[in-house]
Amino acid sequence: MTIYEEALKGNITNEMNEVANEENKDVSKIMKGISNGQLVIMKSLNSKPLGIGGSLRTKINVNLGTSSSIFNIDDEINKVRIAQKYGADTISDLSMGGNIDKIRKEIIKNSKLPITTVPIYQAVEQTDSLVNVSEDVIFNVIEKQLKDGVSSIVIHAAFTLENLRKMKDKRIMGIISKGGSFTASIMSENSRENPFLKNFDNILEMVKERDIVLNLGNAMRSGCIHDKIDEFQLDEILLNSKLAQKANKKGIQVILESLGGHVNAKDLIEWIKIHKTLTSNRPLFVSGPLPVDIAVGYDHIAAAIGGAFASGFGADYLCAITPAEHLGLPTARDIKKGLIACKIAAHVGDSLKFGLNHLFDNDLELSKNRSLKNWKRQFELSLDAETLQKNYSNLKSECSMCGKYCAISISKNIFRTKYQGRTS
Amino acid sequence: MTIYEEALKGNITNEMNEVANEENKDVSKIMKGISNGQLVIMKSLNSKPLGIGGSLRTKINVNLGTSSSIFNIDDEINKVRIAQKYGADTISDLSMGGNIDKIRKEIIKNSKLPITTVPIYQAVEQTDSLVNVSEDVIFNVIEKQLKDGVSSIVIHAAFTLENLRKMKDKRIMGIISKGGSFTASIMSENSRENPFLKNFDNILEMVKERDIVLNLGNAMRSGCIHDKIDEFQLDEILLNSKLAQKANKKGIQVILESLGGHVNAKDLIEWIKIHKTLTSNRPLFVSGPLPVDIAVGYDHIAAAIGGAFASGFGADYLCAITPAEHLGLPTARDIKKGLIACKIAAHVGDSLKFGLNHLFDNDLELSKNRSLKNWKRQFELSLDAETLQKNYSNLKSECSMCGKYCAISISKNIFRTKYQGRTS
Repeated sequence: MTIYEEALKGNITNEMNEVANEENKDVSKIMKGISNGQLVIMKSLNSKPLGIGGSLRTKINVNLGTSSSIFNIDDEINKVRIAQKYGADTISDLSMGGNIDKIRKEIIKNSKLPITTVPIYQAVEQTDSLVNVSEDVIFNVIEKQLKDGVSSIVIHAAFTLENLRKMKDKRIMGIISKGGSFTASIMSENSRENPFLKNFDNILEMVKERDIVLNLGNAMRSGCIHDKIDEFQLDEILLNSKLAQKANKKGIQVILESLGGHVNAKDLIEWIKIHKTLTSNRPLFVSGPLPVDIAVGYDHIAAAIGGAFASGFGADYLCAITPAEHLGLPTARDIKKGLIACKIAAHVGDSLKFGLNHLFDNDLELSKNRSLKNWKRQFELSLDAETLQKNYSNLKSECSMCGKYCAISISKNIFRTKYQGRTS
Repeated sequence: MTIYEEALKGNITNEMNEVANEENKDVSKIMKGISNGQLVIMKSLNSKPLGIGGSLRTKINVNLGTSSSIFNIDDEINKVRIAQKYGADTISDLSMGGNIDKIRKEIIKNSKLPITTVPIYQAVEQTDSLVNVSEDVIFNVIEKQLKDGVSSIVIHAAFTLENLRKMKDKRIMGIISKGGSFTASIMSENSRENPFLKNFDNILEMVKERDIVLNLGNAMRSGCIHDKIDEFQLDEILLNSKLAQKANKKGIQVILESLGGHVNAKDLIEWIKIHKTLTSNRPLFVSGPLPVDIAVGYDHIAAAIGGAFASGFGADYLCAITPAEHLGLPTARDIKKGLIACKIAAHVGDSLKFGLNHLFDNDLELSKNRSLKNWKRQFELSLDAETLQKNYSNLKSECSMCGKYCAISISKNIFRTKYQGRTS
């Protein structure tokens, strides 16, 4: 039986117990969350199962992988290391260059995090065409990726040939989802229906066999903030929601990807809530979102704002955006920057969703140590201890911002306390 | 007559016309906004007047100035240059080291932006004491700073000795406002009432003579997210609101500073709205706010999230926070990073407050050029053209993220358009 089927029968599995422990939750709530489709558990080969959705901590995905112009396997393994070190929850291997099979196997071998793939990428790369990609190739790719032990796959199944025909001229930026554009190209050039929609039942069978999580992708996301949420996005949300119900009925756990890309802040806040309602609160994965277009080179910051809004108003799972977004394949350094920005976003989002619970113990502890001017401990409790320790090892008491006029010292003196005031 | 008095009489001044032009607004609305205290105009020696509040674009302040441990006048002038180059609206000179008078004069001379000071800083530095700062010294400092041509001063007038006595032990981080802690120390050590509160009428007279903007400071802001909005903050908001009314009655324009520091996201969203209501929608200046404590070294990103929330839900004026916050005096490079992050935050905030109006024309233009792969023009329209042009001058068509599998190209091919779709 799959995890979903176990949950539906009211059975508690090891995975559910592990997630409950990790998240400091009652295991019966985890089970309930899975059975009503609001929470999923990703299993992975080398590590603990990961819970996403429900009222669990917001999770973070890191995209990595080669491109057709840069493909060095060591670089990608280094990115895996950086993603783990700085607290990613999952990794997506989006490789499209070099020996993709080998790269994927190495990433899976070297990763303690669940790995997601987007099979259409490899199908297109193998065929070396955006037109003649057969369904056989797609199925073969899915099969080998599942066999290698991926924890989740993304398919862009929820748009139709009719939608594509209607879209023409209606958007400034057209389709900017990579997997979505591949799928759309194959459909459009061959006047063929969406292969993932057409073969959805077959895909469910393959996915069920491995009991992995199915990620229903977001092909219709907008590519600039002036492309507002439109009929195509709404149609995709509604169709993905139906497909999710179908998958659940087959015993498969589902994540919905939506509202990523470039979304103005008003639409974002409104639609995150609408999305949760329209999809019976199923786990929502967003990529970005970027609430402005002009932050080129600083898109990790724009995405941190978008991610905090998204997560704060209901999204469950964010995708880190690096400063190299729109400019090139990110380096490991870019991935670190994007991931840390996304960690901050998820943390803010969680504070809005849940209030200041146990997830904010480090903030409290850090603040006390800030008051005590214990720099070493402050750095240990922060998001990038190593860099701080390297750059600020000479800090003893007051920093150079205020020198002898440090408000913390003055305040402690006013109140005659070791800390500034209360200690808990 | 002061600008406020002119507005009250229904007179339209040059300053009002200039602001109306700059902001693409009807000048009668500017006048109305000033007369009801919801909008202020800062005059400055070397440049155009600046409007803050009402329904104008969110403005950004940059803090700079020497500290008691680092004081190099050239560094500070360079920071002025950086602040102007990357789009700050105002500068606060917070110098506390070196020849403060000379530094201020040089900053004012070299700046095209309005300059704000916090007179208690220099009063403390001149006296070299946190106890024996006489009211005479405070008044002398205010007088010479006004004479030099500052556009605004900050005073922390809205907390009492009684509040200080009640606060003991009630907070984790006590008082973390620098000017607030100075004022509190003088009050507490001498068992004296708040000198700015006691002498508020005299201060109003001095401020009125130069017709500058009075910034009613935020001494009671919290220093960690676990110090929630408390009675002391509420008292300060209410007292500042009364003082603002009093100042308006004397013909003086007022900005209220509040809800800066470390504020959890729930409190932030809620209290920004409450603040606007309690203060009859007077211009609200926030510093940060930081919605998490653990982002040491990345506080510009935490503040960008906090600033976007604040501005989006009603704040009018943000203060850029640099990555050096909590660690040391920021360099010009830090200030650039903090300012760009804050620009993104203000822009997102404006989109939430106003929707996509003319302020977002560059986003549209940039997106069209993204679709056309016109990298040069994209860079020109972004927040840091120079760096992008330097680092990505080799970009011709597709970038290394997707190489030949570029979604933009594929989408254009699907829809057979030059742009991806509609062009406006």
